Amino acid sequence: MKYFEDLQCGAREDFGSHTFTADEIKAYARRFDPQPFHLDEVAAAATHFGVLTASGWHTVALWTRHFIDHWRRAQEARGEPPAEAGPSPGIRDLRWPRPVHAGDTLAFALEIVELREMAKRPGWGLMVGQASATNQRGELVMTFRAAKFVRKRVPVGP
Amino acid sequence: MKYFEDLQCGAREDFGSHTFTADEIKAYARRFDPQPFHLDEVAAAATHFGVLTASGWHTVALWTRHFIDHWRRAQEARGEPPAEAGPSPGIRDLRWPRPVHAGDTLAFALEIVELREMAKRPGWGLMVGQASATNQRGELVMTFRAAKFVRKRVPVGP
Repeated sequence: MKYFEDLQCGAREDFGSHTFTADEIKAYARRFDPQPFHLDEVAAAATHFGVLTASGWHTVALWTRHFIDHWRRAQEARGEPPAEAGPSPGIRDLRWPRPVHAGDTLAFALEIVELREMAKRPGWGLMVGQASATNQRGELVMTFRAAKFVRKRVPVGP
Repeated sequence: MKYFEDLQCGAREDFGSHTFTADEIKAYARRFDPQPFHLDEVAAAATHFGVLTASGWHTVALWTRHFIDHWRRAQEARGEPPAEAGPSPGIRDLRWPRPVHAGDTLAFALEIVELREMAKRPGWGLMVGQASATNQRGELVMTFRAAKFVRKRVPVGP
C-alpha cells in the first residue's frame, strides 16, 4: 500500500484488467454462490439471464485482488517496505448495473473521493474511494464506495 | 429460493453456521485478498490485527453460500421446483465491526425489512433484507443491507 501522504483527492488508480473464463465463473459459484445462472450454461439458459453469468461477488473479489496487487507494486517501485493497510470500516452502495459473462474483460479502478485525518487514530488517515469495474465495451458492471484506513508515513532518521 | 408470496416482513431466516479454519482463511486470501494479516500468522503478528484474520470478503462469500443453500433447502422441503432467484440491484452499508479469526464460528442470518411490488417487473417482487454474521460470543462481525428480486409464484392449472 502507499502511505496516506501519497494519496491525492480526485486521483484515479487503474489496477489492470482480467478476462473471465467460463471455468472460473463456475468454480467461484460452486464454492460461494451456487445459483443456476452462475453454475452451468444449460441451466442458465432457462433463467432471466439466459447465459452463464459471473456472481457479482466474484467481480468484487477480483477487484479486491487487483487493488491489493496494484498498491503493492506501487510501493515496490518506490523501493519502500510494505506499508500496512488498515481495516475497512465499510462499503456503501455496491451495485452491479450489468451482468458479466464468460469472455468479458473487466478493467478495475479506484477514484479517491475523500481523504480525512483521524483525530482518534494517530498514525492513520481515512481514504474513501469510488471503486469500479468496466467491461470491454466501456460499460460499468460494478461500482461501490469503499473506506479504508491507510498508514501515515513514519518519519525515519533525524 | 422461496417465492415472493412466501416472504413476510420482519421474518428472520437463520441459515446455519460455519467455523473458519486457518487453512481456508489463507486459501481465500491467496486467491482474492493477499494482505499480510490474511495470509500468514507470523506476518499478521506485525500488523494492527496481531493475529491471522479472515478477509471481510471471505465472510460475505460464506454468508452468500449459506443463504443460497438455505433457500434451496426450504424449497426442496416444500416439494416445489427451484424458483428462480433474480439479480440483486445492490448492497448498502456493508460493515465489518469486528475481526474474524481462525476457530471462530459464525452464524449467518437475514431479516426481511421490506417487500415491494414491482410495477415495471411483472412476475417479480423486491425483497430488502438486513444480513448478519454473528460469532460464538454473540458479537456481530458483519452486516449489510441487501436487495434482491424474487419470483412470484406462477399459478399452475385451473
